[in-house]
Amino acid sequence: MSLPSRVKIVEVSPRDGLQNEKDFVPTDIKVELINRLSAAGFPNIEAASFVSPKWVPQMADGAEVMARIQRRPQTLYSVLTPNLKGLEGALAAHADEIVIFGAASEAFSQKNINCSIAESIARFEPVAEAARAAGLRLRGSISCSLGCPYQGDVPVASVVDVARRFQALGCDEIDIADTIGVGTPRQVRDVMAAVSALIDPARLSGHFHDTYGQALANILAAMEAGIAIFHSSVAGLGGCPYAKGATGNVATEDVLYMLRGLDIDTGIDFDAVVDIGQWMAAQLQRKGSSRAGNAIAAKRDA
Amino acid sequence: MSLPSRVKIVEVSPRDGLQNEKDFVPTDIKVELINRLSAAGFPNIEAASFVSPKWVPQMADGAEVMARIQRRPQTLYSVLTPNLKGLEGALAAHADEIVIFGAASEAFSQKNINCSIAESIARFEPVAEAARAAGLRLRGSISCSLGCPYQGDVPVASVVDVARRFQALGCDEIDIADTIGVGTPRQVRDVMAAVSALIDPARLSGHFHDTYGQALANILAAMEAGIAIFHSSVAGLGGCPYAKGATGNVATEDVLYMLRGLDIDTGIDFDAVVDIGQWMAAQLQRKGSSRAGNAIAAKRDA
Repeated sequence: MSLPSRVKIVEVSPRDGLQNEKDFVPTDIKVELINRLSAAGFPNIEAASFVSPKWVPQMADGAEVMARIQRRPQTLYSVLTPNLKGLEGALAAHADEIVIFGAASEAFSQKNINCSIAESIARFEPVAEAARAAGLRLRGSISCSLGCPYQGDVPVASVVDVARRFQALGCDEIDIADTIGVGTPRQVRDVMAAVSALIDPARLSGHFHDTYGQALANILAAMEAGIAIFHSSVAGLGGCPYAKGATGNVATEDVLYMLRGLDIDTGIDFDAVVDIGQWMAAQLQRKGSSRAGNAIAAKRDA
Repeated sequence: MSLPSRVKIVEVSPRDGLQNEKDFVPTDIKVELINRLSAAGFPNIEAASFVSPKWVPQMADGAEVMARIQRRPQTLYSVLTPNLKGLEGALAAHADEIVIFGAASEAFSQKNINCSIAESIARFEPVAEAARAAGLRLRGSISCSLGCPYQGDVPVASVVDVARRFQALGCDEIDIADTIGVGTPRQVRDVMAAVSALIDPARLSGHFHDTYGQALANILAAMEAGIAIFHSSVAGLGGCPYAKGATGNVATEDVLYMLRGLDIDTGIDFDAVVDIGQWMAAQLQRKGSSRAGNAIAAKRDA
């Protein structure tokens, strides 16, 4: 069991989590969530999305969120930017990192944005160029890397191809994202190995959803393949847009519980994260989907 | 990633699952559950418990359940027997396998049955002898192998010691059970390696609870350590008596989903198991805790 001694956790609840919540979450709560996450020691928080509020009303308050949060100097605050207008917003908001994105599935790309994968990534060229010119960190996220809700299987070669395109755009970090949570451990190992042949694994991350309960096993397999950056969401915030009522992003509490058991350092205060997850679930008036978080809360209540 | 090509799944929902349900589940439903599980191809089903109905009222109908189920010749039907009276019931019911049990935690043993671990296992001597004399298969289950609700950490040496005692009683199979679901993958690997130094790993099983979300990662680690028998429960039936409202036994659907993705054969009809899990959760009038089962059901509904 060859595992990293240190792992970077990218907390995605404020953006990927809350974007997929049915109702708009008030700005005050978003700001408090991010402030609490910063205080708990997360090195990187996906804080907002600068997209059209027509398309993603849940993220319409991105500029206000970024203006009101208390910045922790050791934390990077990332924002999603689909285009140059979004990048302008991100620059005005003093984001630390820009996130661009593309699917590894041709069917998903066509269905979602009505163009090919290659076209979708070419559209990011001016965004990437301007972000680099402004000295911002750049991250490329490859959705549907382990499966697609429309075409099913996704060839490993497609993931490698998108990774190559993101590398050419100058991405500092590239996410292998299992958007619908269908992947299993050997598949994870194979995809990570294939992309690692092209890109230093220290620059790759695993973004796993727990829709089929596979996320922690997949993180374990990815670590054994040399990956040491993972995305997660407190209380499993977010859900799955492709299977109503099913689980979405892997819960941060569950990931941290495993890493702690493996003596892998994250620099994050686990107990504080359990509190944040329980608090956030209460704000949304439902039970969070973190098993570790809920078990610890149940023990505290007993 | 060195994994077995075939895994034996022991389905424990009729006993370990339903015993931990708050309400008594009607005999008709228990019989239908076991019949459906048999038809889905499970090689081993933990079907009943011959214990005092004063202590475990949920299992009071064990004899009737065993008398009414349709036996599938390729399936072994196991029952729990705490003493000679239980064994008589098991023999009368024509059980295929007897399960005896002990904790690896001294505190748990004292608190639960008011005697030492060594005494608790010595009490099984006449049961084991009579079971062997009757030609029955014998399984020994080691609870609290990865942690205890009372003493916390459990030394690996204690697990090895209990395994040795069960081996001396003639057990054909020995379960390493994480009764409260607190274990993590490296700990699993270490415990399995230590017990494997004494007992052929082909005779060891992993019984994991998903209370902290770790069960699939633990199964993956156990398989890498040479273990190829696992216990699970459809829809995650059972819950956790030590953390109210938390998850208990790992859900069979989640385990089978992972094994299918790893091309590991179980001989079990996955789609049938998803149906059984949804049916059983409906009988109990709540949502089951299998993530794979619920995601597949949600997709079917969409």
